Amino acid sequence: MPTQHDAVEVILAKRDRHELSDSQIDWVIDAYTDGRVADEQMAALAMAILLNGMDRREIARWTNAMIASGERMDFSTLSRPTADKHSTGGVGDKITLPLAPLVAACGVAVPQLSGRGLGHTGGTLDKLESIPGWRALLSNDEMMAQLESVGAVICAAGDGLAPADKKLYALRDVTGTVEAIPLIASSIMSKKIAEGTGALVLDVKVGTGAFMKTLESARELAETMVALGQDAGVHTVALLTDMSTPLGRTAGNAVEVQESVDVLAGGGPADVVELTLALAREMLAGAGRTDVDPAEVLASGRAMDAWRSMISAQGGDPSAPLPVARESHVVTAPSSGVLTRLDAMAVGMAAWRLGAGRARKEDPVQAGAGVVWHARPGDAVTSGDPLFTLLTDEPERFDRALASLDGGYDIEPAGTAFSASPIVLDRVG
Amino acid sequence: MPTQHDAVEVILAKRDRHELSDSQIDWVIDAYTDGRVADEQMAALAMAILLNGMDRREIARWTNAMIASGERMDFSTLSRPTADKHSTGGVGDKITLPLAPLVAACGVAVPQLSGRGLGHTGGTLDKLESIPGWRALLSNDEMMAQLESVGAVICAAGDGLAPADKKLYALRDVTGTVEAIPLIASSIMSKKIAEGTGALVLDVKVGTGAFMKTLESARELAETMVALGQDAGVHTVALLTDMSTPLGRTAGNAVEVQESVDVLAGGGPADVVELTLALAREMLAGAGRTDVDPAEVLASGRAMDAWRSMISAQGGDPSAPLPVARESHVVTAPSSGVLTRLDAMAVGMAAWRLGAGRARKEDPVQAGAGVVWHARPGDAVTSGDPLFTLLTDEPERFDRALASLDGGYDIEPAGTAFSASPIVLDRVG
Repeated sequence: MPTQHDAVEVILAKRDRHELSDSQIDWVIDAYTDGRVADEQMAALAMAILLNGMDRREIARWTNAMIASGERMDFSTLSRPTADKHSTGGVGDKITLPLAPLVAACGVAVPQLSGRGLGHTGGTLDKLESIPGWRALLSNDEMMAQLESVGAVICAAGDGLAPADKKLYALRDVTGTVEAIPLIASSIMSKKIAEGTGALVLDVKVGTGAFMKTLESARELAETMVALGQDAGVHTVALLTDMSTPLGRTAGNAVEVQESVDVLAGGGPADVVELTLALAREMLAGAGRTDVDPAEVLASGRAMDAWRSMISAQGGDPSAPLPVARESHVVTAPSSGVLTRLDAMAVGMAAWRLGAGRARKEDPVQAGAGVVWHARPGDAVTSGDPLFTLLTDEPERFDRALASLDGGYDIEPAGTAFSASPIVLDRVG
Repeated sequence: MPTQHDAVEVILAKRDRHELSDSQIDWVIDAYTDGRVADEQMAALAMAILLNGMDRREIARWTNAMIASGERMDFSTLSRPTADKHSTGGVGDKITLPLAPLVAACGVAVPQLSGRGLGHTGGTLDKLESIPGWRALLSNDEMMAQLESVGAVICAAGDGLAPADKKLYALRDVTGTVEAIPLIASSIMSKKIAEGTGALVLDVKVGTGAFMKTLESARELAETMVALGQDAGVHTVALLTDMSTPLGRTAGNAVEVQESVDVLAGGGPADVVELTLALAREMLAGAGRTDVDPAEVLASGRAMDAWRSMISAQGGDPSAPLPVARESHVVTAPSSGVLTRLDAMAVGMAAWRLGAGRARKEDPVQAGAGVVWHARPGDAVTSGDPLFTLLTDEPERFDRALASLDGGYDIEPAGTAFSASPIVLDRVG
């Protein structure tokens, strides 16, 4: 039974820049979960936290209190070590799809609890649901059985995991309190720690298409999360990766599944392959398996086998043709030269407006909608050649998607100096 | 029809230290009043305003939007000019009771819309309700008729006046967002401007027993409110007055009515008489009646006549005996010397805990409960003589009230230098 406090007392403490005590944090999370602290009180507290901050001890306690609000999973009975990956969200970020079966094929189990997309960043579950028959909802027992048999599962987080976070996340979304590092870090880490993974790799995105626009803020978030993971006994590292340019050549649902299958088949865009291998190496190292080379496993076709098993185990048909959008519209290059910039936010907004994403949680998404880009920064382009293909079932969506792309790329004269930024910008942990 | 905005957009603007536009302010107040902006969204916005502030234009627009959310009263058909007073709240602050009939007796109508107490500061309506038969609720027509016939009315504000403020005030109370100067100033001034008074005197309390603990913060609040009043065409001045020491010699309900009647009869504590006259002079000057001396009118007994008419007009019996608490407890002086400090907050908390005030809006108050102090700072005291009399109907309340008084006063050896601080500390306007 936690000590009794009062919502106004806790709000005033943070409003007036004091540290919250362990007992205040435990009480407020517990009381918010069961409704004794009202939404308007938590909203005022969240804004005070956003503006006045929390220190490491407060963030750790807040995270633990959210974990304690629900159940914890336990994978210690599995015959393999576990490792998971979390991305803070980007455009064209399909990495989980090839990564989970690749790491499973290397002998490490991947219990990936994923979410749906909201706004301009896509959701892993939305992408996988474009595969005919595939289902995102598994019971804990089904998840354990699939981890043992296949070694990889990508499914929706159950309601029992960190319910306080679930409630707080929905509140932050409507109260302008999403972009607070203590709240972002505790939200992500409470779910990952409760999930029970042994090792965790964080892919913290930086750039126009990411939450974190600067390397400094991304590093602060990464360091906060790595410390939380390590304190909880989870082997945690973070890669800071570029999200000024979208990943690969597609943003959407079925189009990203296809690109992932291309990677598993030994092809696919170089940047997607590079990031998949970098994250796989970190996951394997975190799980103590530095003896396996994921590039070799990918080339061997065993990652593709694991993909097919994983999709089948969740009711999907890995051989079925993927849905195709009813309408398409091609944007051609207005001039010849070199593509020097392709803005992740512009592409993400276009894909969203074409129907690949949702504006509200209850909205459906289109399986076939999205954007394909035919050049990446550094590529030569010729005036009149296709630059983008826009895909949607509803042609009335083209105008707003085209408006998003307007100003979202630069073509400069052939010979203009261009140096690509690396994908992995830094490593924390 | 105001421009359409979005609650999150308005919250983000203030969160990120931008000025809110006129159109954003109009929209958010209108949408909050009718429920399109949720309580949790307004709570986040209120916290952002508290921490990041609003400038003069924003505060003026916010105030006007709250006025526009309801009806405005109009006293221009009265045969007399109007003047009102507002106090930011203190301990033993019964000044409205002698002041309203005094100013009425000087020929200026006083339309005083008052509130009930919450926490350690008493409420004018709670005090008057200790008079048998007196009722706080009047229709607008009854109020106008009484202003014409008696010249003074003290009653509850109707629901039609600034409903946005009513809703926001209740929200601030539970979300730790009371102490924001922009929100305090706009709350007070929206009601006073909507009420339609021609002149307004603000009694801004400073000290331990007041919202504003420092002269600087009190001056900022006073200047903000005076500017709002003047912009709205209301002749507005503010006095900054001391609230380190409680006013007079009583804090409670019936005990403060008795002290007010003493003042109207030509007696009463010197500080209450001094502040009543200072505020009366400002109200008369604001209404253009510098030709009348309120001290003379008080001495003549005409203010007492106006009091009796005012109480009778609202159903009260001005001759009926006032309620007396069932139990009393005397605290004697622990040593002889000079009383050098009597803390307003300590006395206010003791009166509140004895039952004179309420912890929640729906709680009743005791008519007879309160504290009487037998010495004021500067007075000589003798060990063993009565220092306080505590009054309540429920003797189990004595212990907590005594705890409030503990450390709330200092007695120093006779001959210790003591200089009383003036009651009126400054004037703004």
